[in-house]
Amino acid sequence: MQRTINFPALSERIADAVHEAIRDLVGTSEADRILYMGADGTPTKKIDDASEKAIFEVLGQEQNPFRIISEEAGEKIIGNDPGFTIIIDPIDGTYNACSGIPFYGLSLAVAKNDLNDICFGFVRNLATGDTFYAEDGKGAYLNGNKIQVSETSDIKRFCVSIYGYRTNIEDAAHISKSVRRIRSLGSVALELCYVAAGKIDALADVRGTMRMTDVAAAKLILEEAGGIITDELGGSLKLEDQLMNRVRVIASNGQAHDRILKLSTGILK
Amino acid sequence: MQRTINFPALSERIADAVHEAIRDLVGTSEADRILYMGADGTPTKKIDDASEKAIFEVLGQEQNPFRIISEEAGEKIIGNDPGFTIIIDPIDGTYNACSGIPFYGLSLAVAKNDLNDICFGFVRNLATGDTFYAEDGKGAYLNGNKIQVSETSDIKRFCVSIYGYRTNIEDAAHISKSVRRIRSLGSVALELCYVAAGKIDALADVRGTMRMTDVAAAKLILEEAGGIITDELGGSLKLEDQLMNRVRVIASNGQAHDRILKLSTGILK
Repeated sequence: MQRTINFPALSERIADAVHEAIRDLVGTSEADRILYMGADGTPTKKIDDASEKAIFEVLGQEQNPFRIISEEAGEKIIGNDPGFTIIIDPIDGTYNACSGIPFYGLSLAVAKNDLNDICFGFVRNLATGDTFYAEDGKGAYLNGNKIQVSETSDIKRFCVSIYGYRTNIEDAAHISKSVRRIRSLGSVALELCYVAAGKIDALADVRGTMRMTDVAAAKLILEEAGGIITDELGGSLKLEDQLMNRVRVIASNGQAHDRILKLSTGILK
Repeated sequence: MQRTINFPALSERIADAVHEAIRDLVGTSEADRILYMGADGTPTKKIDDASEKAIFEVLGQEQNPFRIISEEAGEKIIGNDPGFTIIIDPIDGTYNACSGIPFYGLSLAVAKNDLNDICFGFVRNLATGDTFYAEDGKGAYLNGNKIQVSETSDIKRFCVSIYGYRTNIEDAAHISKSVRRIRSLGSVALELCYVAAGKIDALADVRGTMRMTDVAAAKLILEEAGGIITDELGGSLKLEDQLMNRVRVIASNGQAHDRILKLSTGILK
């Protein structure tokens, strides 16, 4: 039974429900109201909660059992003996959503028993509707069109998203001096998808506070688009059950990955 | 005759024409092709040119005389004895438009004889359709709703857009250390409008290479929304006829303006 789940269609339904649930909240101070402390150890705002509730409502109507790991609610099991884990960030880029900056998304990944065995990834920019998705071994897509990372190999021509540079200005400066353009858009899941689509050449996390819910879907999308995503040592990114765990992420088009990694960890200056 | 010009309606027509002209170019390598050196001294890409051509086509159909200053074509006079100057940036955020990052806009300001006497400002995010505008003395609007700058007064809680920090990492670092969040979205005209709408608390230009076409419209929108925009000395921003001239811009919600200014020029550290 479980093999017949149409995850792309399910994700579309979920994203549509989230869009409906948050549309009147976007850009309001009400969206920003803290309701409780989320399972990931950070405050859950009203807009995060509204999105997550909409997601659980759609999933609750499904006939299939699921294990869910979501940024606010933590782990939930629907039904018996679930064969899949759905990893969700209900709103990636909460500040943007609360402020009405059109750059915030829903991130949804599906893993088999091992969380590192991700078979489906889906990220939607909820402000524009742009939808990135990938299935394991079948390539990555944006709005139905196959995407690939950029071919830029000269780091001096790179456009790089820097995450967390307020907290690590020194390493952020090393990167800034070495590349052409810097962006800081405020939604890591979407920025990783932008690397996948060749809109940005790399993403450097100089902070190291990402949760697996932020990166699970975009990791597959990026890899299916030909990109590389590693931890700060260049090893493969390990996704663990623990929402409180934090990871550090370096992502690129596969060109100059090692150099971006060394710049963002202070090994190169 | 000239007093009867409906600038809001004219701007809508222009923005719609620009949207049509560039929609198939956005996110393509063709958009990024350099056609010639623009009047502002920087390369004109195909998408800039397509937008400007659409603008001139609409303006050419008008019965009124205009003086136009546009980033690519420079100064043009349509008709005789124009009573208004229209100051245009056909695409603010060209890199984003070429890459398909949904954050690039059209900026259009109307000035009387003195370019500093701006009576109308219009900025549209061409990816989302969000439209900011203001008339002198009548407040500022986003999609028909009156906007105001944020009320945040504690600089530690500020979200600040930094422009050009790759070129001046030291001063960018001073700002970064003093505030809560940094953004770098890649379109100054839109980021200034975000300050006007309270989505961002301040914009700090640490580079000083802005053109009057980048800021003319957003200046009025920000001031009508209760914000402050100055040069790097805290004086009023002077817009001059010369497209090749560059200005340095500090903008804020009016709170902590002097501190943002001093941080962004290295006076405070």
